[in-house]
Amino acid sequence: MALEEYFENFRRRDWERDSVDGTVRLAVIGIGGFARNRALPAIRAGTYCETTVLVTGSQRRTREVADEFAVEHVVDYEGYLAGELADEYDAVYVSTPNAYHARYALSAAQREKHVICEKPLEVRVDRAREIADACRQAGVALMTAYRLQLEPTVRRCRELVADGVIGDVVQVHGGFSHPLLEYTSADTWRLDPELAGGGALVDLGIYPINTTRYLLDADPVSVYASTHSSGDPFDRVDEHVSVQLEFPGDATAACTASFDAHASSQLQLVGTNGMISVISPFGGVVPQDIVVESGEMRMEHTGPPVDEVREEFDYFGYCVQTGTRPEPDGTDGIADLRVIEAAYESAETGHRIELDPSRRGASNTDRGR
Amino acid sequence: MALEEYFENFRRRDWERDSVDGTVRLAVIGIGGFARNRALPAIRAGTYCETTVLVTGSQRRTREVADEFAVEHVVDYEGYLAGELADEYDAVYVSTPNAYHARYALSAAQREKHVICEKPLEVRVDRAREIADACRQAGVALMTAYRLQLEPTVRRCRELVADGVIGDVVQVHGGFSHPLLEYTSADTWRLDPELAGGGALVDLGIYPINTTRYLLDADPVSVYASTHSSGDPFDRVDEHVSVQLEFPGDATAACTASFDAHASSQLQLVGTNGMISVISPFGGVVPQDIVVESGEMRMEHTGPPVDEVREEFDYFGYCVQTGTRPEPDGTDGIADLRVIEAAYESAETGHRIELDPSRRGASNTDRGR
Repeated sequence: MALEEYFENFRRRDWERDSVDGTVRLAVIGIGGFARNRALPAIRAGTYCETTVLVTGSQRRTREVADEFAVEHVVDYEGYLAGELADEYDAVYVSTPNAYHARYALSAAQREKHVICEKPLEVRVDRAREIADACRQAGVALMTAYRLQLEPTVRRCRELVADGVIGDVVQVHGGFSHPLLEYTSADTWRLDPELAGGGALVDLGIYPINTTRYLLDADPVSVYASTHSSGDPFDRVDEHVSVQLEFPGDATAACTASFDAHASSQLQLVGTNGMISVISPFGGVVPQDIVVESGEMRMEHTGPPVDEVREEFDYFGYCVQTGTRPEPDGTDGIADLRVIEAAYESAETGHRIELDPSRRGASNTDRGR
Repeated sequence: MALEEYFENFRRRDWERDSVDGTVRLAVIGIGGFARNRALPAIRAGTYCETTVLVTGSQRRTREVADEFAVEHVVDYEGYLAGELADEYDAVYVSTPNAYHARYALSAAQREKHVICEKPLEVRVDRAREIADACRQAGVALMTAYRLQLEPTVRRCRELVADGVIGDVVQVHGGFSHPLLEYTSADTWRLDPELAGGGALVDLGIYPINTTRYLLDADPVSVYASTHSSGDPFDRVDEHVSVQLEFPGDATAACTASFDAHASSQLQLVGTNGMISVISPFGGVVPQDIVVESGEMRMEHTGPPVDEVREEFDYFGYCVQTGTRPEPDGTDGIADLRVIEAAYESAETGHRIELDPSRRGASNTDRGR
């Protein structure tokens, strides 16, 4: 197909094949900044989900949020875990600190509720696998909330790569920096390794890593990383991280992330017959500015931004209602945690860490290291 | 100084302080594609050098080149080494296969001729150091021909970085891919490790590495790399390479190069207070398209390309005539070879290789490894 055809109807929902009438009733668990500012507005604006319950540690403050978004029910974590209001929702969106994901997701699976869970799926591979196992056994959908996979620019890029428009991908560069302390205080759980599972790698680096895996439709075979921290308040986690991945074949990816640098993101793929450059892919509002070169041809596409969080929740709602397995599933979430665990091991040892791609979804420690 | 002031008189030669009347008479050694297509036209177009002698393995073919560029003398390599025509030149430009750089540069130094030598300075640190030592002892200038260091976009970037416009640099991404076999045949010396000293890393990767070192005004403290080759005709060198450098402080650089991918190059620096992105910096004709963000400010500068090779030779001629030490000197050339040797060791072992920055210009093996 001609290059320009990829960009026609750029924002098409290629995943939306059947018509669906109803909505999936969601309990939103963890009412932090992202839930308030992005998730709740996106669910309200979208088609296939509605928020019916807010699960919170602070009922008083959350009541205001409930009013704003016309959500009828508010319950605290204990109440949720005890099964209160369980008839009021069909699925949960877990948006708590990472180390609590399993607690709330497992409780949902026990009650046969579907789960969409923020990334990373948990703080360790073994706990993420508990979530995946529980959802599978309960027969409920599990989606890891990789919003980029529903972002039209990224989906069009994946089609271009899959169709060989840039040949075989050889080198990827992806970076995401976000000055955390301009948006939150230094006592944030994101700087607590027990609650977050790590620092910039876990919170930001996971975007270029997951997006690269998604675009190449492949898992890395080895990982190298270095981490840097300048001290308080970044003394317990990686403030900056630089990761190098090797994929089957010749492709490598250089992925960086920083908690303490100018807000910026970039993604570039160079292939044997072309290249793709996406401007600001990871920052949450993608400007849809993409440059594609294929042989002698060059094309730049710019378009209005799409709310990728709305796309994400609509995709989840569609999957639940049509019985479609979400593409960013538990296995996908586990695969990134394997990369993250290997990256931290590499940063510690200074060695390249090999990953067995046949064990996608398994724990590194299963290898008996 | 305000951001826009950096871009006023963008192409200014900040290095050109004194007025100089004469020209440096050059013997150009090795009349390959780059000499014919870029160096000889640039010297002719420039102000401070002129080509008076061509040194070649093929006198018959080179006679045509001499006619085209109105160069009076042609001599073969043996004649040059024997001192023929030594009165006809003041300096030499060494543009032979890398493994012959020392041979011709040392001969020049013996005759007290100044030297501008293509990158890499040689195929190994110890041989590059022989060149540097010989030139120092002879009291002649030695410049490693890093054209990027004379390219206005790169020089303006260095000023921006030095002045803290983007804060402390945290992460650099630099890539350079060039489909070698579209420009030359598979029997090129560039694919012979004895003559070239390596593959894509030596020929292309050296650009992002040297440019990053130049922009940060720092040497890396550790190197990690992976190399990939798909087989014949790339079976003896790295077809693709991916290098990760750590600098003093927190900065890291991800540098990639490929002999067998779409022609493409990119450079991006992210700092604590801004970022710089240079479009296509390494391909030989820089479009001078640069985006700078500093705090809340954003500026894009585009300008007409500058012939950086002309800038390079004019700078060399100016340095020789004014007794200025060229900035890309022997130490600079040696520093990149240390990085390259460490990168190949890292690719072989899978380990991060530490470099002692206090030993800039020294050989890795001096450390007694």
